Amino acid sequence: MHSLTVDLGDRSYPILIGPGLLGNSTHFTNAIRGRQVLVVTNETIAPLYLEKLLASLQDFDKVDSVQLPDGEAFKTLDTLNRIFDTLLEKRHDRSTTIVALGGGVVGDMSGFAAACYQRGVDFVQVPTTLLSQVDSSVGGKTGVNHALGKNMIGAFYQPRLVLIDIDTLTTLPDRELSAGIAEVIKYGMICDAPFFAWLEANMDALLARDPAALAYAVERSCADKAAVVAQDERESGRRAILNFGHTFGHAIEAVQGYGKWLHGEAVAAGMAMAAELSRLRGWISQQEVDRLRALLTRANLPQQSPVDMAVDDYLRAMSVDKKVQDGKLRLVLLRAIGDAQIVADTPKEQLIEALHSCGAR
Amino acid sequence: MHSLTVDLGDRSYPILIGPGLLGNSTHFTNAIRGRQVLVVTNETIAPLYLEKLLASLQDFDKVDSVQLPDGEAFKTLDTLNRIFDTLLEKRHDRSTTIVALGGGVVGDMSGFAAACYQRGVDFVQVPTTLLSQVDSSVGGKTGVNHALGKNMIGAFYQPRLVLIDIDTLTTLPDRELSAGIAEVIKYGMICDAPFFAWLEANMDALLARDPAALAYAVERSCADKAAVVAQDERESGRRAILNFGHTFGHAIEAVQGYGKWLHGEAVAAGMAMAAELSRLRGWISQQEVDRLRALLTRANLPQQSPVDMAVDDYLRAMSVDKKVQDGKLRLVLLRAIGDAQIVADTPKEQLIEALHSCGAR
Repeated sequence: MHSLTVDLGDRSYPILIGPGLLGNSTHFTNAIRGRQVLVVTNETIAPLYLEKLLASLQDFDKVDSVQLPDGEAFKTLDTLNRIFDTLLEKRHDRSTTIVALGGGVVGDMSGFAAACYQRGVDFVQVPTTLLSQVDSSVGGKTGVNHALGKNMIGAFYQPRLVLIDIDTLTTLPDRELSAGIAEVIKYGMICDAPFFAWLEANMDALLARDPAALAYAVERSCADKAAVVAQDERESGRRAILNFGHTFGHAIEAVQGYGKWLHGEAVAAGMAMAAELSRLRGWISQQEVDRLRALLTRANLPQQSPVDMAVDDYLRAMSVDKKVQDGKLRLVLLRAIGDAQIVADTPKEQLIEALHSCGAR
Repeated sequence: MHSLTVDLGDRSYPILIGPGLLGNSTHFTNAIRGRQVLVVTNETIAPLYLEKLLASLQDFDKVDSVQLPDGEAFKTLDTLNRIFDTLLEKRHDRSTTIVALGGGVVGDMSGFAAACYQRGVDFVQVPTTLLSQVDSSVGGKTGVNHALGKNMIGAFYQPRLVLIDIDTLTTLPDRELSAGIAEVIKYGMICDAPFFAWLEANMDALLARDPAALAYAVERSCADKAAVVAQDERESGRRAILNFGHTFGHAIEAVQGYGKWLHGEAVAAGMAMAAELSRLRGWISQQEVDRLRALLTRANLPQQSPVDMAVDDYLRAMSVDKKVQDGKLRLVLLRAIGDAQIVADTPKEQLIEALHSCGAR
């Protein structure tokens, strides 16, 4: 078992990574302070792992569970309210702990519910997708979508523990595995050139779900993210480099309709766009752009815009993205592979050219 | 103008109290950091004060407003979503400031919206009822109700500024003035015996809306509450004394249906119940109970249970109150007027006797 600590002062917490963790009750009894637990999961994950998790929680006094519908389309205030319904119907008090069993959507909603229920109860994450293991495990971002924008309603809220059971990746569909790899590649791109090179050498092992390769990639991704978040928990500055590819990616998700492209797929194409823009600015070479594009392709990820999206679609969608501050579009660009920088002065013509070079009409 | 600071480290903020503050743009330009403002108010307050407030905000680049329906019944996730709708439709970004103009319901929802919009934007409170001036101005409690419980969904979130324009009390209905006085009396009861004596001497002036008496009562109440909150921002211990009368009061509100009794009225009756229970425990005298009951009566407040509520109604409602921890009912009782203490070991028979002595069937 690997472990690392996300260092946030009195909000610090451990991430445990390894096989077989879900069936080990010790980790839960160590981390959970009260006697009540609510497991939040979804209809896809419940048949696979809920029974195993509940068996590990059998020493607690009150253990309930709620199953949400699966998918980003259900990441709404209405679905959130189902968690509150269950907590209140089952009479959970302030000492309860919410355990999220599932991917990013389950984690984001469970964390936000924990942040808001009785103004804050404890929270444990058991992420079961590669994307959620390498992304939402670290950083404390929780929340729901609004019809007019993704992740527009939420809170920064840290878990007490993140438990990553690598075995859960055996049931992950190929497409979701690739979508998770997009975020893994991101860490190499923004802050860890040696990891990017490791990914170039080990992409086949990851796609073949080699457990050791997966555990290493998850641990290194979490460590990279934790280092960035520790410097800037509330995203006032440096942390925004984690949004590399995301401003473009969110535009794709918003215009296509959430759920058509997976988040990681949209981010993959968005990273290609941000890389092209970095090249147009004279910061990285064509060769570096090609290395990124090649690695995305090997991971079965898109590195082009959806064919039906026009440049104007991007420009319109990006102006309501959260990364806009006081009217200025802030983007994350690359000085080199492994070295990201935030800029707020992108010329519109360069932006348009970068979008064209990734196939936007 | 009076002013005081709520001392919470890097979340400290000033409370300004006096006449004519709403019309003075300086206070707003000093406190608001961005160029965008959303005013949240309700349909009752808007015709009275919205125009005046907007005039004081005219130097900002983008000023929008949203009017919510008036009343506790609308303190829900659905109404909250109307604030998010407006913020997104009008394209407010992370640098926006939400200004709450209204009573406790507007303040609680606006503060919660500020806590959640894009995971946190700035917040300014302009409370227009006595209750909200002396209660929600201090403490950072924000949130909404759930069908199964009051204030069950929310966050601790501090404003940048609280601006209390005493002139707004001239339009407050008599019944709401009295309901606010209930919370003012509470501060005397739990931590400020000299203030309780001052209230006994000055109740007529308060009911006659003497501006100097009102300003003094508001300032002293805010200072008392700020002293308690500064010791315990997240309500892990001492802060719970502010709930004096509230566990009983919430039971009254829940069983009667929110809105039938005003919050302050329910708290008034609840304080009488908690005082009776303190007497049964041998902590305070019959005379002290009588002083409280007499002051409540002079303030036109109830000091008895609603006639149609039975002891069992209370017991049932109180077991889901937030103040229950690990299955134990925690109550705030009095060692003396001005000295409250939290207890978790109330004998059920004493509880029942206290409820009977306040007219519960």
